[in-house]
Amino acid sequence: MSSRDVLQTDHRWLDQETLDEVRAHVPMVYVEAVPVRVDHLGRIVRVGLLLRAQADGRISRSVVAGRVLYGEALRDALWRHLTKDLGPEASPQIPVGVAPFTVAEYFPDAETSGFHDPRQHAVALGYLVPCEGECAPSQDALDLAWLSPAEALTDEVAAEMSGGHGRLVRRALAFAGQLP
Amino acid sequence: MSSRDVLQTDHRWLDQETLDEVRAHVPMVYVEAVPVRVDHLGRIVRVGLLLRAQADGRISRSVVAGRVLYGEALRDALWRHLTKDLGPEASPQIPVGVAPFTVAEYFPDAETSGFHDPRQHAVALGYLVPCEGECAPSQDALDLAWLSPAEALTDEVAAEMSGGHGRLVRRALAFAGQLP
Amino acid sequence: MSSRDVLQTDHRWLDQETLDEVRAHVPMVYVEAVPVRVDHLGRIVRVGLLLRAQADGRISRSVVAGRVLYGEALRDALWRHLTKDLGPEASPQIPVGVAPFTVAEYFPDAETSGFHDPRQHAVALGYLVPCEGECAPSQDALDLAWLSPAEALTDEVAAEMSGGHGRLVRRALAFAGQLP
Amino acid sequence: MSSRDVLQTDHRWLDQETLDEVRAHVPMVYVEAVPVRVDHLGRIVRVGLLLRAQADGRISRSVVAGRVLYGEALRDALWRHLTKDLGPEASPQIPVGVAPFTVAEYFPDAETSGFHDPRQHAVALGYLVPCEGECAPSQDALDLAWLSPAEALTDEVAAEMSGGHGRLVRRALAFAGQLP
Repeated sequence: MSSRDVLQTDHRWLDQETLDEVRAHVPMVYVEAVPVRVDHLGRIVRVGLLLRAQADGRISRSVVAGRVLYGEALRDALWRHLTKDLGPEASPQIPVGVAPFTVAEYFPDAETSGFHDPRQHAVALGYLVPCEGECAPSQDALDLAWLSPAEALTDEVAAEMSGGHGRLVRRALAFAGQLP
Repeated sequence: MSSRDVLQTDHRWLDQETLDEVRAHVPMVYVEAVPVRVDHLGRIVRVGLLLRAQADGRISRSVVAGRVLYGEALRDALWRHLTKDLGPEASPQIPVGVAPFTVAEYFPDAETSGFHDPRQHAVALGYLVPCEGECAPSQDALDLAWLSPAEALTDEVAAEMSGGHGRLVRRALAFAGQLP
Repeated sequence: MSSRDVLQTDHRWLDQETLDEVRAHVPMVYVEAVPVRVDHLGRIVRVGLLLRAQADGRISRSVVAGRVLYGEALRDALWRHLTKDLGPEASPQIPVGVAPFTVAEYFPDAETSGFHDPRQHAVALGYLVPCEGECAPSQDALDLAWLSPAEALTDEVAAEMSGGHGRLVRRALAFAGQLP
Repeated sequence: MSSRDVLQTDHRWLDQETLDEVRAHVPMVYVEAVPVRVDHLGRIVRVGLLLRAQADGRISRSVVAGRVLYGEALRDALWRHLTKDLGPEASPQIPVGVAPFTVAEYFPDAETSGFHDPRQHAVALGYLVPCEGECAPSQDALDLAWLSPAEALTDEVAAEMSGGHGRLVRRALAFAGQLP
């Protein structure tokens, strides 16, 4: 993206140059949502993973994640990223509780925390979000796969996850009581 | 209820005499669900309160609560009590996380903990449960009222709640970030 | 233990015969504590595992666990079991939050939930408890081992854990942000 | 503070001008700690409130709060602010769980969320932190008062709290099971 790209006219959006400068100075606030299909008792049946091309050209799997904008409430940011990545019919059920089930701290240095983002230091609030509706990967995602919890925990899938998202999925399944 | 009343032929149900004896010896496991209506961002719009005749003849408001049976999973117990009290069309969304948002300890002595049950010592796991469907109070409930969070927090409503349920509702709203 | 063994004169204790009968009718309330050593930032440095002879004669590793008595508060039960199993100098720091970080449901049938107790159906509230003081295994424990998180997660250690305690330790490390 | 004040030579600190600019573009990451004295069972006995002169000259009560720096882990930020505000002997027990018990969203507009910060949009992760050691208010705090939970909940004290900290204390007591 060139430095002149402005994603929206909304003042909350930054041009790339300003965003790059801000990123070098303070941690960014992110929300992350692990999309799941649940049965009528609230048990996870499927975990949704997006297939994306990363900044470095590699293709990897990830959960829904994105930046919180200036002036934007966390619930609005969750809704915006979920409907952008999973499509307008996804019907995400944003949790009633205000606290995330986990927090992931991304650092430019891959060794610091197990969560890695070469662009920035980001503090990501993690939520587990059942989606009832039809999901269609949109924009920059190549595909959306719904895996069983057992499949999502295999070494193969974990190896395809970017920057710590495999770790996030394991935490989510532990929180749900479904990590073996 | 006479000592010969057996609620179901299922072996997990106890006749009243056995239940009374067991209750005198060990704490009972309960689940409690605060039923809520939420908007698309997961914010509580209404809190559901049942109007019931209590054992002592007084009429009071309460959330959904009930005993976990021998051999019954917590999620099954939540489903059973929610659909029994709110009707088969309630569509409760049982939380994905396995841990309750709070625990309430009921003692026969009203002074011990702020939660009071003259019949027994009960450990109640509390969950916040959005209900999307049409709710109809059933069985022993006289009415079901959907109050705004502000109404549910008034002194009048709190005074009509039985045995600590007002306290439980305040904890639920705090957990949701909606206690002023 | 014979049916005449009464563990304490306190009325909350049951003779074995009554306890066996009660266990056949209702789920028992348990507390479970994963004892840990933490650094000054609250990060887990060691996980404490007890070595015990089980009812069936096998020797296995487990966390601190025990029944909540009639009339006993959860915090008192946690304190009682922690100081009984780890010794009076353990200085357990019982969490301020009232909700457990997880709930484990033990069933007599090993296949139901991943948590297994041949004697009973038990609902166990799980807490993560830093212990600052000197710990000495007492009573029925043969040994107390302090393992690093990485050691506690090895297949060898997991295989030595009884009835689902390995699963509980993995959930605890995920909750603490320390599951790889 | 003048625009030339640089608090530390560490590159993570920003001069006031840069900080002001960054603040106008992205939400800031904050940690907030409600300092408490607890008994041996983990029950809150006292809540610690700092007395401070605010930016507008008014004097008000608040909990420990501060910005997370670029490259700084949340646990390090909690430790830094707790020992800065309560003194080096405070011995804060930072929670083992990685997730905050609540999140407070501060906006420049006082009406948006109940949390208000005229300087910025901040997302604050809230933790409940027992402090065992001797606490001495330092730097910019005028006093540190240890109030009973009942005192901390009075209307007088609530009226003296700045920008939503009274709300945060109520959430903390609800989380601990100690909100009436």
